[in-house]
Amino acid sequence: MAHISIIGTGTMGQAIAGLAAKGGHTVEQLNTSSGDQPVTGEIVVLAVPHSSLASVLASRADQLAGKVVVDLTNPIDFTTFDGLTVPADSSAAAEIAAALPSARVVKAFNTNFGATLASGSIGEGTTTVLIAGDDADAKALLSDVVTAGGLKAVDAGSLKRARELEAFALLQITLAAREQISWTGGFAVTA
Amino acid sequence: MAHISIIGTGTMGQAIAGLAAKGGHTVEQLNTSSGDQPVTGEIVVLAVPHSSLASVLASRADQLAGKVVVDLTNPIDFTTFDGLTVPADSSAAAEIAAALPSARVVKAFNTNFGATLASGSIGEGTTTVLIAGDDADAKALLSDVVTAGGLKAVDAGSLKRARELEAFALLQITLAAREQISWTGGFAVTA
Repeated sequence: MAHISIIGTGTMGQAIAGLAAKGGHTVEQLNTSSGDQPVTGEIVVLAVPHSSLASVLASRADQLAGKVVVDLTNPIDFTTFDGLTVPADSSAAAEIAAALPSARVVKAFNTNFGATLASGSIGEGTTTVLIAGDDADAKALLSDVVTAGGLKAVDAGSLKRARELEAFALLQITLAAREQISWTGGFAVTA
Repeated sequence: MAHISIIGTGTMGQAIAGLAAKGGHTVEQLNTSSGDQPVTGEIVVLAVPHSSLASVLASRADQLAGKVVVDLTNPIDFTTFDGLTVPADSSAAAEIAAALPSARVVKAFNTNFGATLASGSIGEGTTTVLIAGDDADAKALLSDVVTAGGLKAVDAGSLKRARELEAFALLQITLAAREQISWTGGFAVTA
């Protein structure tokens, strides 16, 4: 069983804590602002808004060395709702990997609305978590947590694919914001 | 009823011809190489590989003025299978719109595998076509064709969203190529 630290206590943080606990893993949840409290998990989920990433990384960069760091952020430009705030040829995950050269960064959960992580289902099927990263062991560790919690996991390729995962999420979020799709649904991965 | 010209007789062209005919629309199908045969449809679907676009546009740019031009291409870099051939801040659809300033370009069908267009279903649900474009009337025309054929249509926003639709498709195609998902499935849009 893995020990998992989740930074952030919002909808996503709670849903992922529930998922991990359901699979029998131990979980610690930390507030975004508790930067002086060390993380003890081998997997650390940054369940914070993209706008909070910089401060979390600033206070915890040393603690995150060697850890599997899970990025679920979507760098949406909320002033326009018409694009991402990261450069077009980059991604939030790539920026985190650059800021944490000793961490094993994976992108995951950013294409799942919180409700579908909590319920375990989307449409008629099981919620699937797309996981991208350059470290196969890190992806396998997280994949085990996801499947032990009753969801499906799909290896989405290298960390470079975070760019497409963030684009996917931008599309999904703009559609939900315009009520074209529901916040309890979205894009489902079918077999 | 609309009159629809489909350039390209491959899997996608055939599936979209079937869809349009099912909805009671009239359809003409043209070979990619029949550039001297005029298109007569008010909607023209460019059902060709991205690599064939330049020659189709070169031979038909004048004919396409004023038409609703549907771009379904995915500019995958097939030498690496690791990215798109268009600049990161652009899209195939944006390049077509630039090449055809008098046409009303919409991006559609590029997120649907041909099998799901032909069968009308994906997973347990109905196939949904995501349609992006800057001309509301053009999107509505195409949306009517899609829904008359028994599929669902979702307005995915402005033509700028083609960038995310192409990223979405890159991810979907790389997953299918690695057998992580099936070519008869993929990403389904749930309510």
